[in-house]
Order: sequence, then structure tokens, then C-alpha cells
Amino acid sequence: MAGTTPQPQSRTRSWWGWGWTDAHPDDAECAAMGALVPGTLARPLPVPRVGDLRIGSPSVEPPRSLAHLVGADPGDRAAHAMGKAYRDVVRALRGRPGRIPDLVARPTDDREVADLLEWAGELQVAVVPYGGGSSVCGGVEYRGDAHGAVMSLDLTAMGRVLEVDTEGRAARIQAGALGPSLEDQLRPHGLTLRHFPQSFEFSTLGGWLATRAGGHYATGRTHMDDFVQSMRVVTPAGTSSSWRLPASGAGPSPDRLFLGSEGTLGVITEAWVRLQERPRHKASAAVAFARFDDALRAVRTLAQSDLSPANCRLLDAGEAALSGAAHDGSAVLVLGFESADEPVTARLERAVDVARSHGGRYGGTSGTSAAGEGPGGDAAVSAWRSAFLRMPYLRDGLARMGAVAETFETAATWDRIPGLIDAVRTEVGAAALKATGHPATVNCRLTHVYPDGAAPYFTVLAAGRDGAEDALWDELKAVSVEVLHRYGATVTHHHAVGRDHRPGYDRQRPEPFALALRAAKGALDPRGILNPGVLVD
Amino acid sequence: MAGTTPQPQSRTRSWWGWGWTDAHPDDAECAAMGALVPGTLARPLPVPRVGDLRIGSPSVEPPRSLAHLVGADPGDRAAHAMGKAYRDVVRALRGRPGRIPDLVARPTDDREVADLLEWAGELQVAVVPYGGGSSVCGGVEYRGDAHGAVMSLDLTAMGRVLEVDTEGRAARIQAGALGPSLEDQLRPHGLTLRHFPQSFEFSTLGGWLATRAGGHYATGRTHMDDFVQSMRVVTPAGTSSSWRLPASGAGPSPDRLFLGSEGTLGVITEAWVRLQERPRHKASAAVAFARFDDALRAVRTLAQSDLSPANCRLLDAGEAALSGAAHDGSAVLVLGFESADEPVTARLERAVDVARSHGGRYGGTSGTSAAGEGPGGDAAVSAWRSAFLRMPYLRDGLARMGAVAETFETAATWDRIPGLIDAVRTEVGAAALKATGHPATVNCRLTHVYPDGAAPYFTVLAAGRDGAEDALWDELKAVSVEVLHRYGATVTHHHAVGRDHRPGYDRQRPEPFALALRAAKGALDPRGILNPGVLVD
Repeated sequence: MAGTTPQPQSRTRSWWGWGWTDAHPDDAECAAMGALVPGTLARPLPVPRVGDLRIGSPSVEPPRSLAHLVGADPGDRAAHAMGKAYRDVVRALRGRPGRIPDLVARPTDDREVADLLEWAGELQVAVVPYGGGSSVCGGVEYRGDAHGAVMSLDLTAMGRVLEVDTEGRAARIQAGALGPSLEDQLRPHGLTLRHFPQSFEFSTLGGWLATRAGGHYATGRTHMDDFVQSMRVVTPAGTSSSWRLPASGAGPSPDRLFLGSEGTLGVITEAWVRLQERPRHKASAAVAFARFDDALRAVRTLAQSDLSPANCRLLDAGEAALSGAAHDGSAVLVLGFESADEPVTARLERAVDVARSHGGRYGGTSGTSAAGEGPGGDAAVSAWRSAFLRMPYLRDGLARMGAVAETFETAATWDRIPGLIDAVRTEVGAAALKATGHPATVNCRLTHVYPDGAAPYFTVLAAGRDGAEDALWDELKAVSVEVLHRYGATVTHHHAVGRDHRPGYDRQRPEPFALALRAAKGALDPRGILNPGVLVD
Repeated sequence: MAGTTPQPQSRTRSWWGWGWTDAHPDDAECAAMGALVPGTLARPLPVPRVGDLRIGSPSVEPPRSLAHLVGADPGDRAAHAMGKAYRDVVRALRGRPGRIPDLVARPTDDREVADLLEWAGELQVAVVPYGGGSSVCGGVEYRGDAHGAVMSLDLTAMGRVLEVDTEGRAARIQAGALGPSLEDQLRPHGLTLRHFPQSFEFSTLGGWLATRAGGHYATGRTHMDDFVQSMRVVTPAGTSSSWRLPASGAGPSPDRLFLGSEGTLGVITEAWVRLQERPRHKASAAVAFARFDDALRAVRTLAQSDLSPANCRLLDAGEAALSGAAHDGSAVLVLGFESADEPVTARLERAVDVARSHGGRYGGTSGTSAAGEGPGGDAAVSAWRSAFLRMPYLRDGLARMGAVAETFETAATWDRIPGLIDAVRTEVGAAALKATGHPATVNCRLTHVYPDGAAPYFTVLAAGRDGAEDALWDELKAVSVEVLHRYGATVTHHHAVGRDHRPGYDRQRPEPFALALRAAKGALDPRGILNPGVLVD
């Protein structure tokens, strides 16, 4: 079975940082970036080496019947020790990663997942489900010491598209399929899932489902949740397999309990997901705004219209400058439309008209008039796109310069958006200045917009605290969580809770739901081996 | 507080049948309808009278502190004994309704709901949450004898729109608001929920949420689930209040656990729901098809397009004839578009073109060509609409003639739709013929369509079994549930599970989810007083 799984490319994944090692910025690039952030180091921290870590022997051995699925290679174990949050990268750079798992298991089917869970349950081995390892919230590591051993359960050997229903536009896909492989396997059928998170290359279907990932679409069906027809989840109490249905009203949705369960209730092994035809029509434009408030009103009007842009991302002036979309202090709205069905230029033009009626300046080639002072449509859009995919690599380069460089995202209703964004900028900026003596950059973009609210996504660039950058980030993060709480803004819009967001999540989650979730966890994972510390204790 | 709740009209609600008593068909109408169904009675059964029922004294009394909220009027208790399924109407007609609740409570705020639950918990009184009482699946009655007393918890004294956010298009609404009152309160703000189930006049927001009701839209966001921003639920273990958010990825959605919980986990008392501007542009058309299979392909193409019709209902030949939309053996597709934002005639025209390219005949006034043999657009559309709202009254008229007259709905993926519809028609028809000696009518319409499947809605008209029509219906229903199970079609698309659908639901629900749901129920309702027998035991 594993033999027919599409093979990964020959490039090397970084064990400690984002993505491919050959895409990492070199020392000179790191230094150049560091020079832009006041108070950073003079020289980059060295790239960490697995050999420098003290990795002991595994404290547990798998039984003979499962031995072929389980490895204990130190490099493999180190690569499965943490996700890829800024604080994970810092911990790797500083030589103190999270607890290294004893074992890395790679099951190839449901039976093997169930057998591994059974064995782990008997020995009280903690099991951390692992897809692409791109968690940015501490979702794939083990913290604490309640378990004698830890096993990372890597699903990527289960990466195949098993069935395609072209008539009904759906496919049954194994949870360990990474983004590019999944799309490669769908392409011959003329279909696409079109779930393109920033982590697309390095995250899996199962991870998207377990974390309620946000993807490609800036409006409408923004989360993976809505693309799920049915799911298969192996739990210690048995395998849950929901029916493949376009819709149902039979009791609370079983799938919605497992969506967002982050490996605490079971291991998602496959799903039927809804697909689309590949778009044949696309059009995009960028519109500049002198005033961010005007841009907010434009975006709200667009979100409440029937236009349904696929992309409707608003960059504030700092974010626009950082990504190269504008350098004149303008905020930039990046608009995109796509369809497999009909031309989209009329919709784009109407959206640009809406933006202009709220003070936007459109200088693109396909627009109607405009004085030309705005950014060129195509240039700004592609500048933003390239920057978007490059950002996590640059973040790691800045981490090597001892800078704080991290992002977080939230969502709130429109009435709270302006105040929320101001408060995050002001309070996180002030906290960074106070802690480091250097001014910090706090930028904002709206990544997803809704008729009733929006999802702001913040970027923080600040001087670090030599040797304790992660602790400094934790302090700044705590400030942001307080602001979010004050504005009733969710602790995460699409990056999951993991361990890092627990303090905010525990305050946000209604207590009776916590009771229900704990009870469900007790029923499905009675020995408490599944991703301990995430969501519930 | 209750003083400002909008007052109901002066018309009288039927205690035993659908809707308003003054809208019931009279004896002559009943006889005329009965003549169309072979094997029915010669004269209608008499309208049942509360006075003919043996209604004992309540077996429990509320404490003095709650006495003002609780009544024991026999007529009121009888009206709260059952929902409005065909089998409920038959039981009333035959003088053997479900267990009459001992008390009817009408709380006016969350505190009173909590107090009532606390008192009921102490005395092990079963509590059946009750909105408009329009359940068609045994969702609002008590069966069995595990509880010494039963209290119907009528939420309609909590019927106000409490807050409106016009900028973000949302409102905080009490769960007991009936459809017309809710829309009346929103109208001055220029906003609408646009949730228009067939039961609109006689069902409440809380009922819609508790049952995951399907509403107005035939495509896209078909269920109430997607219109929920946040919910407030009073449980015996405390009150759950989720944050008002446009979207979130923080763990499994708390709201999605309570959506569809049918009063088993708590009492929904209010919700923030997403609204829309009232549509300014509307257009509709009807397209006739000589072959149902062609119509199915047309509908699938429309569901997979970008057109998003608000209405896209396909009536088979029998259903078209029954509703007056066509009398020549054609299937009829009823299309409707609406927007607050832009004209919709171009979308309607493109939809009609799609339908015609699959063999549809369009004879409406705004169409392009067509030979005119199809039904006129406007006439067919309004015939269907009037029949739609009148149908439950006619069903009761047929029940008085001793006929079986009931509907059920399901959903399945496209690959299963043709076989499923054929099998239901054939097997339910054959079972009715065998049981009664008379041929039965089994019609089908698609009420909601999706890119990946559709929701067929069946109407069964058959001779009854004098004095045991409900038992006969149970037999036919069991046949249908077997067919649904064989085709992997859900036991309910938007009418909930209640008590009637338990056998099908128990087979459909993944067993690990059942474990989780039972555990959640145990945590939130440890004394098992909430709607016993529904969803879980």
C-alpha cells in the first residue's frame, strides 16, 4: 500500500525551521533583514544541528508486531519534537527544543493506527498525531511529564487519494496527504480541493481537518469544515465513520465534533471532501487607500455584497510596505475572483467600483480611469503573493538575528474591528518597547472577511531578548490575548489552539461545553494518551 | 419583560392539527379530497375535542416560587402533548394522544428556565422543551414511564428581538420568537433572517436551532446552522454562552454541539443570528421536463454552477400535478433568484438556458423562445407556493378521511439519487398496496440541492387501516428507512430525529460519536430529565 503513495521530492525538509533547507535565507540575507529591525544581533545565530542535541535512547520499545512501523532515528525524532511556531524555531536555535519523542510511528492503514493506539494505551505512552508538522500553536509536541514515553504518530505514509467521484465532485483522501501531492493526484480528474493555506506544501489534509484550517477563500466557505462530506477517525474506543452526505439534520453533526479536535479525541485517517472544477476564469486587482478606515468600510461593503471574491485581503500600510505592495503609506486591498463557470471580469470591475466609492485608488491596467497614483494591479498582487509564501522563511531568518518575528490571527464582529486593531497595535507595540527599549513593528492585514465581521492577522517584528526570545514572545502574546479577550475576539481564527493558546481558549470556551468536551474525551480516550495538554486536561 | 413581547394574533391555534383552526378544510373539502385516494372512509372522522380526553390532575405541583410560570389547564396540556406529525394527528383523531404533560411552564428569562430545570431535576420531572410545537418526528412529546411527571417547557414567552447590529447585520433574538413575529421585529431595521420553512408561522428560532432546520435557500446555506453567530443554552450544569464571532477555529465549535441537540443537552434561550438586507431584486421561473432524469442532470449542473439560485426545487410529475404546477406528466423545476445587491434576471436567464440545454421546456413570459408547451413561469411558481403552504392543512383533512398522508425527507450524494428515488417509490408503494389492497401515490421533489448531492422529499398518499392508520404509517416508514439505509441516505435532512427517527438514526450515527454524545449528555444533564428518549438514552 505504502508503495503506491506518491513519493516526496528529493529536497530536504528542515528539522528545526520552516520548509526546505535550500530555501532558507543565508547568513548575509539574515544580517540584511536584521539590520531593518532595531536592537537585533550583529551576526546570525548558527543553524542548529541535531548532533548538538542530547537525545537519549527511547524509554520504551514497540512490540515486535509493530516494530516495522516505528523508528527511533535521532534526526527523525528531533524533527518531530515541535511544530514550526516562532517560539519553536527559537527553542531549536537556542538548543533547547521541546521534549524529543521516544518514537516516531508511521502507520499505513487504519488497522495499524488502531494497533498503535492500543499498544500505547496499555503502556500509557502519549501519542501526538503529526501531519506535516507545520503547527504554529504547539500542537504537535509533548509538554509535561505525566507520561513515561511519547510517540509521534506521523500520518504521511497514508497520503493517497483513494476514490474520486467526478459526477458529485468529491474524493476520499487519506489524512496524511500533503497539499501538493493531494492536488497532483486530483489534477488528472480536472478537480481541485483549492485549499491553499500558507503552509500548503508542508501540511496535510488530516492536519487541516483536525485544526479547522483556513484556506484559499477569503469570503464564504473559508474553513475546511465546509468541505467535509464525511470523516473516518480511529479512536481508542473504536473507529468512527460518518456517512457520506451532502447535508444532514440528524442530531449534532458527528464531523463537527472531530473538526478542530486537534488529535485529542482520535486520529483522523481519511475523509471524503468536496472538490471543485479547476477555475478557468481569473482576475485580480489591487486598490490603494490613503485611509485604513475607508478601506475597512470598503471591505465590509464587499463582504456584504453578492460578489463573493475568492481573495479580499486588506493590508495596512505597514504590511503593504513589508510585502512590497505599496511604499507610499497606502493600505492595499488585494482582490481576486475566479470561476470554472463564467467570466469574472465584470465582478472584479464592480468590486473595484465599490472600493473606489469608498476612497480607493485603482491604478491597474484593466481599471476604468483612476489617476495612476495607486499601485499597479498586477505588480502589487504578485508582490503580495510572493511575499506571502516567502514570509515564514524570512521569519526564521529574523529569528536567527535574535529578533522577535511572529504572527497571530483572530476574528471579531465589525463593530469591534477598528478598536481591536488599534488596541493590538498600541498595546503590543508598547509592551515590546518597554521590554526591549526598541520600537517594534505591529502590522495588520485582514485575511478573511465575512458579512458580520473579519479576521485580522497581525505581524510583530521587534528586538529580541538575547537567549530568551521565546519568553519575550510569550509576554507579548499574553498582552495580545488580553486585548483579544477584551474585544471578544477569538483566540484563533484558523491556526488552532494547541498548547500555546490554551490560556485564551480556556477563558473563551463556554464552561458547559468544556464539561461536554471533557466527558467526550473521557469516553473516546479513557486512558488520556491522545495529544495530552491540548484543548482539555 | 413579557409585556413587551409582540402579542400573537387573535386566531385560534388547533390543539390537535396543523395551524389555525379557521384554515382547516371543512367536512365537504375533506370528503372531496378523500375521494381522490382509493380506499378511504366515506365520511370524515369528527374533529377531536379536548373534553373527550381523560386528562387527570397533574401528578406534581410546582413550588410556590415558580407557580406563576406553570399552568395545568387541560386544553393547554393537551395542545402540548404532541407535535404535528401525521401520526400525531391520527392519534388525536382516534382519541389516544401521547402522554399528556402534567404541567406547561412558560418562563420569561434564563433565570426562570434554570430555576425550572433545577426544580425538575430534584423531583426527576421530565422536561420537554417546546417552541412552536410543529415537530414532525415526535420531538416534543414524552414516551415511556421512567419519569413520574412531565413538564412541557414552552419558550414562546421569550419571543423578543433584543438587539440589532445593523452594521454587522446580526440580531440577538430570544429562542421563543415565532417566525412572523421575528420578521416583524426585524423589518423596521431593513433586515431579515429569511428562514422560511413550511412551518414558518408555527415554529420558533429555538426550534430551528435545536433541530438544524432547513429553510428558505435551496442551495448554499440551506440550514440554520450557518446563520448562527453565538448561542445561549441553559443546561442543568450551567449556562453556556458562546462568543459572538463571524468565524473561529478554536477547538470543536461549541454551537455545533447544541445545534441539532433537540433539547437533550440544554434549553436554547437565545442566539445572535446573521441577517441580510431585504431583497430588492427577485425573479422566478418554472421549467418543464418530459423526463425526470433530464431534470436531475439539469439540477445537478445548476447546483455545481456559480449561479446560487435561492429556489431550485424539482417536482416530479406526480408532485407537479398535486401542486397544480403541471398536469401533462411533466416534471417541473421551480427556479428563484433574489438579491439585495444587484439585478438577478441575467442569472435567471442563464439558469433557464442550462435547464433547456438538458431538455427543459420554458413557457414563461420572460424567457427566450420555447414552444409554449411548458407551464407558464409565474402561474406554475405561484401554484406551487400556495400549495406548499396549504399542504399540511390538506394532510390533516386526508387524515380525517382515514387516509395515510405524510412526507419524509432525506439527502444523499448524486450517484445514489436516481436509484434511491426509484427504490422509495417502488418499495413504499408496494408495501402500501400489500397492506391496504389499494394503490398508493408516492411522489418526490428535491427541496435542496448541493454540488455533491440533493435532498429528496417524498409525499405518500395511501388508503389507511381503519383505526390504526398510525401503525400502518409506522410500517411504511420502516420500509422507507430500510431503503434510505441501503442507499446511505440520511434519516433526516431537516426535520430532526426526535423519537420517530431513532431506529434509523441509531444505525446511521457512528458508534464512537454515540459514546461521546452520551458522555456529553451525562455531563450536562446528569439526572436525565431533558427530552428523554430523543437522540440518546
